[in-house]
Amino acid sequence: MNFDLIIVGNELLNGKIEDRNTHYIAKELYKHGHTLRKVHIIGDEEKLYFEALDAAFNKSDVVITTGGLGPTKDDLTKSILAKYFDKEISHSEKAMEIAKLHYKRGNREYDTEKIQYHLFPKDFDVVLNPVGYAPGLSYTQDGKSVFATPGVPTEFQAMLSQEILPGLAQKSEKQIKHVIVKTWKVPEAKIFHDLCPTLWDELAQFGEVSSLPHMTGVDIGVKLIGDDKTNSENEKKVLQLILDSAIKDNIWHIGPETMEEIIIKEATAKKLKIGFAESCTGGLLASKITDVSGSSAVFWGSVVSYANEVKMKSLNVAEETLKAHGAVSKETAFEMAKGAREHLNVDIAVTTTGIAGPGGGSKEKPVGTVGIGVSTLKNTESDIYYFTGTRTSLKERFARFALLKLLEAIRDC
Amino acid sequence: MNFDLIIVGNELLNGKIEDRNTHYIAKELYKHGHTLRKVHIIGDEEKLYFEALDAAFNKSDVVITTGGLGPTKDDLTKSILAKYFDKEISHSEKAMEIAKLHYKRGNREYDTEKIQYHLFPKDFDVVLNPVGYAPGLSYTQDGKSVFATPGVPTEFQAMLSQEILPGLAQKSEKQIKHVIVKTWKVPEAKIFHDLCPTLWDELAQFGEVSSLPHMTGVDIGVKLIGDDKTNSENEKKVLQLILDSAIKDNIWHIGPETMEEIIIKEATAKKLKIGFAESCTGGLLASKITDVSGSSAVFWGSVVSYANEVKMKSLNVAEETLKAHGAVSKETAFEMAKGAREHLNVDIAVTTTGIAGPGGGSKEKPVGTVGIGVSTLKNTESDIYYFTGTRTSLKERFARFALLKLLEAIRDC
Repeated sequence: MNFDLIIVGNELLNGKIEDRNTHYIAKELYKHGHTLRKVHIIGDEEKLYFEALDAAFNKSDVVITTGGLGPTKDDLTKSILAKYFDKEISHSEKAMEIAKLHYKRGNREYDTEKIQYHLFPKDFDVVLNPVGYAPGLSYTQDGKSVFATPGVPTEFQAMLSQEILPGLAQKSEKQIKHVIVKTWKVPEAKIFHDLCPTLWDELAQFGEVSSLPHMTGVDIGVKLIGDDKTNSENEKKVLQLILDSAIKDNIWHIGPETMEEIIIKEATAKKLKIGFAESCTGGLLASKITDVSGSSAVFWGSVVSYANEVKMKSLNVAEETLKAHGAVSKETAFEMAKGAREHLNVDIAVTTTGIAGPGGGSKEKPVGTVGIGVSTLKNTESDIYYFTGTRTSLKERFARFALLKLLEAIRDC
Repeated sequence: MNFDLIIVGNELLNGKIEDRNTHYIAKELYKHGHTLRKVHIIGDEEKLYFEALDAAFNKSDVVITTGGLGPTKDDLTKSILAKYFDKEISHSEKAMEIAKLHYKRGNREYDTEKIQYHLFPKDFDVVLNPVGYAPGLSYTQDGKSVFATPGVPTEFQAMLSQEILPGLAQKSEKQIKHVIVKTWKVPEAKIFHDLCPTLWDELAQFGEVSSLPHMTGVDIGVKLIGDDKTNSENEKKVLQLILDSAIKDNIWHIGPETMEEIIIKEATAKKLKIGFAESCTGGLLASKITDVSGSSAVFWGSVVSYANEVKMKSLNVAEETLKAHGAVSKETAFEMAKGAREHLNVDIAVTTTGIAGPGGGSKEKPVGTVGIGVSTLKNTESDIYYFTGTRTSLKERFARFALLKLLEAIRDC
C-alpha cells in the first residue's frame, strides 16, 4: 500500500524541534512491504493542511497525519479533518472512555472542562494511544484511510506499530525482498565505473537497484518483488553476481544490519569485551553502541576523558606525552587505547582524540584532525586522520570511523 | 521570503538514512527572518519531482532541492531541472572550472569520463560547494529562484549558509524578533488553563504565539514583526506580561538557548567543573554536553560504566550495594554520583543508572525505571524516576532529565 505522511507543526519549520517520525515510519513501512510515497511537513495552517490532504489522497491509499492533537489553541488536526470530511464534532462516548483510560494509566484525572478529547468527529474511529494521553483518529472513505496521530515521537511510534499497522489488512499478494550488500573503503564512482562497470545493469534485471554512499563505503541494494520462491531464487542470483564481481573483497556485510549491530553480534559470538576512551567524540561512540539492544553483553564502558587530567588519571597517559605531542596526536591516542584497555579490563579498546571545532584548530592540526587508537591483547596501534565538517558532523564522522576500526579489530581477534 | 524545500531520495523514504537537512534549514531560515512554508520528501522519480516543483513554485519565492547530484544512475536532479525549465544540458566551462577546483581541494583528479559535473543546464548558474565535490545549481525565472544542493548534510549546510543565503538579497524591510520564554515543571494544559487562562490572548495582541511542550516544561514563544523600535518596545511588554503572570516562578530561561548551552554558560561563569557517570544513557549525556562549543572549559569527563565491574572499579560503588539493591537503585545512583565526583575531581557529578529496555525489566523495576544521582561539594542526593518509551527514546528522556538536575545543581552552587 502507498502511504503519505503529513507532519504538522510550526515548530518543525522554524527549527525549534527536529522531526523524528519520518525516519521511524520509513523503516516500519519498508519492513512491512509498504511504500512511503511522500512526506509533507507543513505549518499549523488550515490552507496548507487542506492542500496536503488533497495531494496525499489523490495518490496514496493511506494518509497518516502527526501533530496537532494537543490541548492548546494552535492544535488543529481534529477540526481540520472534521471540516475536510464534512463531519460535525460532538461528544463521543467511546472517545471519552479511551481518554479516561489513558489518563487513569498516567495517574491523572480526566477533566472534561480542560481537556476535550471526548469531542470527536462523527463516524470517525478512536485509535488507542499506547503510551500517551491523546487518542488518535481514523476514518475510511472510498477505500482510502486517514489516521491522525500525536506528534510526540514515542506516542507516534507506539500508535503506528501497535495499533495502525496491525489494524491495516495486508492487501498485497506480492512479497517484497530487499537484498543489501554493504561495502567499504571504495568510493561510489569507483565501484560502478572502474571496478564493476556492468554490475548496475546486470543487477537491474532483477529489480530496482540503489546505491547509498557513506563516509567509508557504499551499500548496494536490490529490491525484489515477486512470490516467495522467485524472490528467493533471484536473491541467490543477485548475491552471486555481486560475489563474482571485483567489489567482492570490499564487502563487509550482507544484510540490512547497521555496523553497530554487527559489532555487537560478532563481539558476542567471540565473547569479546569492548571499551572506549573518548575525547573529541565526547560519549557519542559509546552512545551509538548502547543504542543496540543487547550491547551490555559485550560493552563494558567508556572513559570520556575530555580534560587532560582525566586522560592522565584514568587512562594512564603520561604527562610528558601530552606536553611533547599534544592531546591530539598519534602518541596520545596510543596511550589512551592501551590505558583504556587496561583500566576497563577489556579485550579491545578504541579511542578518539581530535578537534571537533569550531575553535582549537591550528595550521598543523586543523579542525577535523583526529587521532584514533586501537588496542587489543595482541597489539596497540594509532594514527592521525583528517575529516571536514561542523562540530556535530565531525563528532559523527570521528565516531563512525572509530566503529569501522573496532569492527576490523573484532574480525582480527 | 517564503521557501519550499524538496528533499529527494528513496533512502529517506525507506528508512535507510535519516533526514538531517530539514532541521538545519528551518533554524537558518528562521534566524534570517525567512519562512519555511513546506518540506516535500519524495523518492527518486520524475513524476513526483515535477509534482513537488509545481506545488512549490506555485506558493514560494525560493525552492531549494537537496539530493540527486551524485555520479550514479539514480541521481536525477540536474536532468529533471533542465527538463522542467526546458533547457538543454551541455558543456559548461564555468561548471568545469568549479568542479576541478573542488576536486583539487580534495587532492583528487577531475576525470571528465567518470564525472559529469561539467555538463550543465543552459542559463543555470553554478553554486560553489564549500566542502564537497558536486557543484550546486541555481536558476531564476519570473522572480522565483531554484537552488539545487547535495543531500549530504555537511555539504548542504555549508552551501546554504555560505553561498545561497548570503547571495539572496534580503528583500523584506520588516524585521522579525522572536521572544522565547522557557518554563519547566508544569504541563502545557495547566499553564494556559489553570495558571494563566488569559495569557495566550494577551500575548497574541503582539504577534503569533506558540507553545512547545517538552518532557519537563514548555517553551512559550511570541513572534514580533515590525521595525526595530516597535519590536524592542513590544518585546518589553511581552516579557512584562509573562513575568507578571502566575507562570513566573516556573521560568528557567528567557531566550532561544538550549538547556545544554545554558548549563555550559552558567557553569563557566561560576567556574564549576562538571562530570558524569552514565550507565543506561551510555554516553548520550556526555555527547549532548560536548555538542556545545566551549564545553571543554567546564566538562571534565564521564565514566560510562555499563558493566558493574566498571562501576566498582572506577566509581567505587560497593559490591554489597549492587548485591543488596541492584544496579538500578537509589543507593547505587548515590554511590555512583559520589564516586564520579571524586574520581573525576569535579564540583558537580550527575549519574544515570536505569533500564532502557527492551529487555531487563521486572515488575518492581519496569523498563523506563531510572536512578538519577547528583553530587556536589555540599551534598549528594539520588532518587528513582519512571518514564515510558522505546530504548533510544528512553535514553533521550533519561539524559534530558539528568540535564535538568544538573542545571538545578549549578544554580544551587
